[in-house]
Formats: sequence, structure tokens, C-alpha cells
Amino acid sequence: MKPLVQLLPVAATPPSLKDNTGDIDRLRKALRPHLGDRPLSVPFGRLASVAAAFRRAGFAGVAVVNDLVTGPELVDFLAAPPRVLAGIALDLGTTHLEATLVDLADGEILARADRPNGQIAFGADILSRIHFAVRDDGLARLKAAVTEDINTLAEELAGSVGIELADIRAMAVSGNTTMVHFFLGLDPYHLCREPYIPLANAPDPCRAAELALAIHPAAVVWVLPSVGSYFGGDLISGILASGLDTAEETCMLIDVGTNAEVVLGNRDWLVACAGAAGPALEGGVARMGMRAGPGAVDQVRFDPTTDTFIWRTIGNEPARGICGSGIIDLVAALYLGRFIDLRGRLRPRAAGSRLIDTPEGPAFVVVPAAEAAAGEPVTLSQVDLDALMRSKAAMYSILTTLTNQVGVAFADIHRIFVAGAFGRHIDPRQAITLGMLPDLPLATYVPVGNSSLTGARRILLEASARERCRELVRKITYIELNVNQEFMIRFSGAKFIPHTDHTLFPSVPFFGGGD
Amino acid sequence: MKPLVQLLPVAATPPSLKDNTGDIDRLRKALRPHLGDRPLSVPFGRLASVAAAFRRAGFAGVAVVNDLVTGPELVDFLAAPPRVLAGIALDLGTTHLEATLVDLADGEILARADRPNGQIAFGADILSRIHFAVRDDGLARLKAAVTEDINTLAEELAGSVGIELADIRAMAVSGNTTMVHFFLGLDPYHLCREPYIPLANAPDPCRAAELALAIHPAAVVWVLPSVGSYFGGDLISGILASGLDTAEETCMLIDVGTNAEVVLGNRDWLVACAGAAGPALEGGVARMGMRAGPGAVDQVRFDPTTDTFIWRTIGNEPARGICGSGIIDLVAALYLGRFIDLRGRLRPRAAGSRLIDTPEGPAFVVVPAAEAAAGEPVTLSQVDLDALMRSKAAMYSILTTLTNQVGVAFADIHRIFVAGAFGRHIDPRQAITLGMLPDLPLATYVPVGNSSLTGARRILLEASARERCRELVRKITYIELNVNQEFMIRFSGAKFIPHTDHTLFPSVPFFGGGD
Repeated sequence: MKPLVQLLPVAATPPSLKDNTGDIDRLRKALRPHLGDRPLSVPFGRLASVAAAFRRAGFAGVAVVNDLVTGPELVDFLAAPPRVLAGIALDLGTTHLEATLVDLADGEILARADRPNGQIAFGADILSRIHFAVRDDGLARLKAAVTEDINTLAEELAGSVGIELADIRAMAVSGNTTMVHFFLGLDPYHLCREPYIPLANAPDPCRAAELALAIHPAAVVWVLPSVGSYFGGDLISGILASGLDTAEETCMLIDVGTNAEVVLGNRDWLVACAGAAGPALEGGVARMGMRAGPGAVDQVRFDPTTDTFIWRTIGNEPARGICGSGIIDLVAALYLGRFIDLRGRLRPRAAGSRLIDTPEGPAFVVVPAAEAAAGEPVTLSQVDLDALMRSKAAMYSILTTLTNQVGVAFADIHRIFVAGAFGRHIDPRQAITLGMLPDLPLATYVPVGNSSLTGARRILLEASARERCRELVRKITYIELNVNQEFMIRFSGAKFIPHTDHTLFPSVPFFGGGD
Repeated sequence: MKPLVQLLPVAATPPSLKDNTGDIDRLRKALRPHLGDRPLSVPFGRLASVAAAFRRAGFAGVAVVNDLVTGPELVDFLAAPPRVLAGIALDLGTTHLEATLVDLADGEILARADRPNGQIAFGADILSRIHFAVRDDGLARLKAAVTEDINTLAEELAGSVGIELADIRAMAVSGNTTMVHFFLGLDPYHLCREPYIPLANAPDPCRAAELALAIHPAAVVWVLPSVGSYFGGDLISGILASGLDTAEETCMLIDVGTNAEVVLGNRDWLVACAGAAGPALEGGVARMGMRAGPGAVDQVRFDPTTDTFIWRTIGNEPARGICGSGIIDLVAALYLGRFIDLRGRLRPRAAGSRLIDTPEGPAFVVVPAAEAAAGEPVTLSQVDLDALMRSKAAMYSILTTLTNQVGVAFADIHRIFVAGAFGRHIDPRQAITLGMLPDLPLATYVPVGNSSLTGARRILLEASARERCRELVRKITYIELNVNQEFMIRFSGAKFIPHTDHTLFPSVPFFGGGD
């Protein structure tokens, strides 16, 4: 373990007429046994304050040294080690920011915090924010919004363990390519325009002061690199967290956020692709959709013996909406109960009184008004169903296209790591029923939680993770699906439950022809 | 030859769906053949503008890359090479700033400029400026003054060859330790207090924007390292320029500015010391003293046959004062004409009517009022003479102490390089007569001009000079004279013309006992 910022003990001989070495030069010299031949740099902006602190401390104490690719960087000097040397791991999500405060000495998570991404005020999704960014001072406003969010999180984290903001000496940031562009104030114009080129995939680390972050001004900010416009550092972080790049057997990582991002590979090779598959699975897109949180329906079963739906909400609170995993459960239940057909169309005769008319068209009542929060039924509309069918078809097509391109059969995949809230809450059984995930033994599927956050924490703590990160970015072959013909053909075939070719899903009941 | 900043040609394949490399990453990749394995960094502050320029140029043109110890640093991109890629070599003197504009492609000097150091308004000498610096915003005002001077010089230089300030992409700065502290805004408090410790002897290069310099904001500013408070980068620059550190035979470098700084050595070892020896030799200290410039008496002879002084002024203009070399010539002539005794005291009987009374005491008339500018005689007072005696004694004592410490006899010294205006104008014969320089064959003495400026130019142009610089700083043994007992004893012995032990100066006439 070698954290991104280290405290190196120093006990230098004080200056004398026999040793007139300059203060900074003396400190450099005292650090040489720790650093070997690597040249230690001192950023100009830190020179005066580090030298003053070193002298004030009587030429003994601890040096604060950032570990960069270009070599170690001396940024501060303390008379005594701080109670905690802390770093922040940040998952910079499009809709949500999640952060942990990490003790860099032992890797312990000291605190957690999260909040919505304040950029939502300027655009709900990535595309609308990119359009906002390129107008007038749009980019500056997006940058300021997320900076403020991060500073608020940092304050919360520091406050909850009773340390100062200046005790936070490092930050590792993992986010999709667009969020990283906004965070760094980089022009996102070409991200969403063919051929979809980021301004920078792998920016060098910078210091907190350069980003107006409220943590220690010399804190190193390490941004996880991306591989393309639609394949961000959040997934690189996921690869780190799941260990895909060091696995002996071929594994897969699936991350469904705003996009579906998939990596396949092992320690020898990695291929990746991404595609728009997520919207229907993210809270806020389906009319009754919501983030996995209190009151969200997250599990649904249909009991044919009693002709009733059995559902559960997070926190057992009155139902307020349905989260992504709930929608998948629900649609699988609707299919198994034959309330929808192979194409995901509601079957009015089977649905009966559960089908209501709404301004958005027909909708299926999942939780009756009497049992729901605010007295309004929780429903799933045909529009939502259509969106889900597209999402699930996209997901399966992404997986088949990717495996086909490298000649790997699904059966050859040792583990499929499923990241994010999707991975945490989804029941792979139901996702298989819908034909969203391949029909593999359930034990193949391993939820890995917020791997974007986990990976960022490893960046904070391990030099090997930082090195792996640079290597795996070089190693990944990225397949662009936006213009892939094979993907489009597979997508059409996947818009059925479970699939046009139902033999691909032997474990899923097949109900033959149409209505 | 590898300049501090290089233009590297780039012709990258434009982005496509088959190659979604980010803009900056594409540029990095295109530069790899030029840079090999050395990691190329892109400072955060330059990231957006470099990427934008690269794209605007259609992914082809020239990259501007600074050559730093930590590796190459990408700071700009141009669609086509500029007409001139220029750098400034700057001699940051206590009283005077001197600069050359250098074509980094071929090393040619395109223009020269100089001006007084504007810090003089806050203190004539180093010590008074240090005292000024530590009061209130003194340091900031000193820094601002010299920054303004440098910006004015840069404007003059750019203007004189018709380029923009932004075409100046590098600066190498050579100055004494205190001037460098002021230039960088570093606290000089301990420079003049025992044990005389600089805040930094070898600061890392920074960028022009960090110093509010008006040249290109990303221009690298390379400051020559110092060895101690009284041994600055100007002398390191002189070692580079004279080649002392690569010489096979033992040589010496003497630089007389505000201090006398001396280095002795060869390619295997270097010892150095410095001491206050200069004041009497610098313009502005002696009452009639002036910088070597038009109207300054720079040569004086006494012709005993006609009982007259023969003098010459720079530019053959009416005499306005005496420069350093003129004072040495004059005092040697006064000694040889027996107008002063062994101790440097004016002999009233010999001087006769040439001796006048002034508010500062007795003074010797060198140029009668009728022949001088402004109708005022050019004189040398006893006070000036006393100062010169101290200076010459200090100089000789420095040289003897230094050679004695390493066991080198004067006769073993192959060459003595004499730097600066002192070296350019002084007649070694007269300096030997005074007992200021050792009695060696005149061919031993080689004037090297403003070697501080010459060395800075080499830093701009040669990677090997930058490397030598780092090495020689490590190699130099610095001997502190401020508290050296041996030096004090030698100093007393040297306060005679030529010396208490006149056998040390066989070529100088010895006039026996006192008056």
C-alpha cells in the first residue's frame, strides 16, 4: 500500500556555518533516503510555504509528498503527523455524487456522504448538459455547480469525523467522461458528435487549488482516465475494483448507469463497449420510476394461485414509485403472469381492471391507490414498458455483440460482475426472464456495489492500482456501438421476451405465438 | 544542442470512429517518437488551450515542449512554427539588469538590452534591500519592481526584432542569491543572518505566468541555482561559461560585483568562496565612482618624466567620474608615482597642489576642473582610497585563503578567468601592482565578459549545460569566509601595497619603509 499522498518523517540537521544548504534543499536531501533516485519536485506555488513550515518546525517533522507519475512532489511540511491523513474517493455520477472519506494510513472508510448532482438544474441528462455547456458561460456554471457539490460533501465528511477541510490531502475522482469534462472545465462539444472524441481521456493529476476545491489547496486530485466519450473513468474504476484486469479466467463487468457499459476480458486482454441502454432503468425516466430509496418498490412477484402481486418497498414504507430493479422484477412478473405479450405489449383482456387510462396512455396498476403513499396508485405505463423493452434489448445486444466480436461464448464467462445500484438490487433471475442478461447459472452473477467508488478508493491507497489503471487503459480495445451494424441487427432480434430465438433462454418459460 | 523549449513537429491522424483517442492523448501519442519513454506531462492550466489549439490546427503542426528534469512538459500547440522561437537570458544584477534575446533554433543573439535594477529605489545595496524586504509588503514591492524591469526589457527586446512578447517562450535567470529570492518572492530574512541560509538554493523551474512575467505565460523560467547566500547562480553561470567544471587543468574564476566570488578547481573538484570585496570597485560607492560608461575614466598612467597623469575616458568624452578599472589604474599610478605610501595614505608633500580639501576630507585631483565635464574636478578621496585598500586586501586574502585550503599554489593555476565589467576593463598588471591579484604571468588572466549572462544563454540552449549545472552545484565545496580566522589574519597582512610580504610580488617595485 502506497497512498497517493504520503507523510515522510524528517529529522534534518539544523543549518550551521559548516552546512549552509538552503532550507528546501536541506529538506530534499533529508527525503532522499525515502525516495531514492526519483527527482523530487516542489511546485513553485508551494515553495515558500513549505520552506517556512520546515524552518518553523525546527527542521524536523513530516513532509507531505504527492506520488505522481512524473515523480514525487513535495507540497507541505508539518511539525507533527496529523491525527488523520485523509483522502476523498468520489463517484461523480450524472445524477448523484457519492463520496467516502478514507484514512490514507490504513485504508479505513471514516465516513460516507452523497447528494444529487447540482448540475441537474441545467439539464437532467448528459446530452442536455452538453448543449447547455457550449452556450455562453454554460461550462463555467456546470463546473461551479459540481465544485460546490463536492465542497459540500467534503465539508460533511470532514465535519462528521471532526477534522479540518485542510486535513483532506488527496482526492480520487471517478466519473463518466462528460462529468469529468465538466468537473475539469474542459469543452465537451465533441463528446456527443461523431466521432465522439474527448478533449482528454487521461489528464494528469492536478492540485485542489487549481479546481477551487475547498480541501487542502495542495491536495492532489487524481482523475480516473476514460477510454472514450461513452466509456468513462467510472468503468475503469469498476475494472480496478472487480479485478477484471488481473483475472486468470475471462470475466465480464456490467455497469448500468446512464449508459450500459460492458467490459470483457482477463489479465491478457480487455474489450469494452458502451451503449445507451440505461434510461429506462434509472430512476426519473419511467413516470413512476425513482432512485432505489425509501418507498421504492424494489421487488415484485405475481402469485397466480391468489391472482395477486406481492411487492416490497425499500424500508417497508408506503410505495412511492418503482426503482430499476423493481421495474425488471415487475416486467418479468407481468410476462410470467401473461399480462404482457412477447413484445412487451399490455394485454387488456388479461390485465382487466388493473389496466387504467392515463393522459400518457394505458398503464398497469402495480400498487393500488389505497396502499400507496399520497393515495396515488403506483403504475407502469405502456410507454415505460416500451422504454424497458428497448433497454433490455440494447443490453442483451451489447453483450452478444461484444462477446461475438472476440469469439467468446457466454458459457465461457467465469463471472459477470454487476456494478452499481443495478447490480445491488437486481435479481439476475428476473433479468434473465426478460432476456436482458444471458441465461447462465445464477452464481455467475456477482454484484459489486458502487465499484466506481471502490476503485477510486484503491487509487487513493495503492500505487499498484494507479499503475494498473494506466496499463489497463492502454490495453482496452474499445468497440464503438453507435454505428455498429451488427449491433443494430441484434438489437431488433432482442426486442422480444426473452428473445426472438427463445432457445437462447432455456430456463425461461416460452408462451408461443402472439396474443 | 537541445533548448529549454522545443518545437516538435506533429502530424497526427485525425480522429475517426475507428480511433476515438482523446485530443490530448492523441497529441501525446504523436509526440512519443520524439520523447521515447519519458512521461510527458501537461500542466492542468494548459490542458484546455493546448487541446483546442491542436484541434484548430487540424491535428498537425508543432508542439511546444519544455524540457524539465521531471520530464518533458507540453505547454502549447501551433499550426505552424513561429518565425522565431525566442528565449531571454537574463543577468539579474543588484545594480543592473542585462538581457539578451536568443534564437533558440540556432543560438544566435538577436538583441541586447539593459537597465538599472529598479529595486535601487528601495535600497542601494543588498543588505538594505533585505531589511526593506522583511518590513510590511517590502518583499512584494521588491518583487514587483524587478518584475516590471524584466517586463520592460522583454518588451524592448521583442520590439527591437519585431516579435510579440508571447513569442518569447523561455527565460534563464542568473543572479546572486538575494536577487533570486526577491525575483521569486522568497523570504530573504536568513540570507544575511548567521549561518546565512537561503530559503532555496535550487528552486525547480516554474512558468512565466506564476511570476507575472509578460512573456508567454507557459514560458519556462529556469533559475540558475546558488550554492549559498553569498554564492549565487550568477557565479554558477560563470563556471558554465568559463568551463571551469570541465577543465583538465586547475583554473580559477573571479567575479567581482557587489561581492568578490571566487571558484577554484577543474573537472574533478571545485571549491568556492565569496566575500565582501567589491564595494570600492563598483560604480556608486567611491564618491566619484561610476559604472563603466561614457565619460568614465577607465585608464590612468603617471608619466614621471613630465610629472603628469595621462588618462582616458570611455567614449573619449569629458571625464565625469572613475569606473572600477580606472580606480585600480589610478591607485597603482599613485603608488608608482609615490603619491601614496604602502598603506594607501596620501602623501601631502608628494601630492602638492593636487591635494585638495573637501567636506569628506583630503582628495587627490585626477582630472582638473577645466578638463572635466560640468567643470568639476574628478578626484579620489582618502576615504575612497581606504575603501579600495580594504577591497584589494579582501580580494587577495580570499584568493590566498582559498588556494591554501586546498593546497594549490598560485603558480599551479593554469588560467584565471576574470568575469564582469571588472574583468573586461581591468588591467591585470595594475591589479598586481596593488597586490590585489597574485603576481602571475599576465597571460594567465583571461577576461570572460558578463559570464553570468553567457551562462544563462547556455542554459537556454543546451541540455548538457542544464545537467552540468545540477552536477556542479553538488560538486562545489563552499568555504564560508565570514567567520574564517585564517581569512582575517591574511586580510591584515594584505592591507599594504603590494603586501606586507613584498617578496610575494617580485614584479612590483618596492619602495621600502614609510613616508
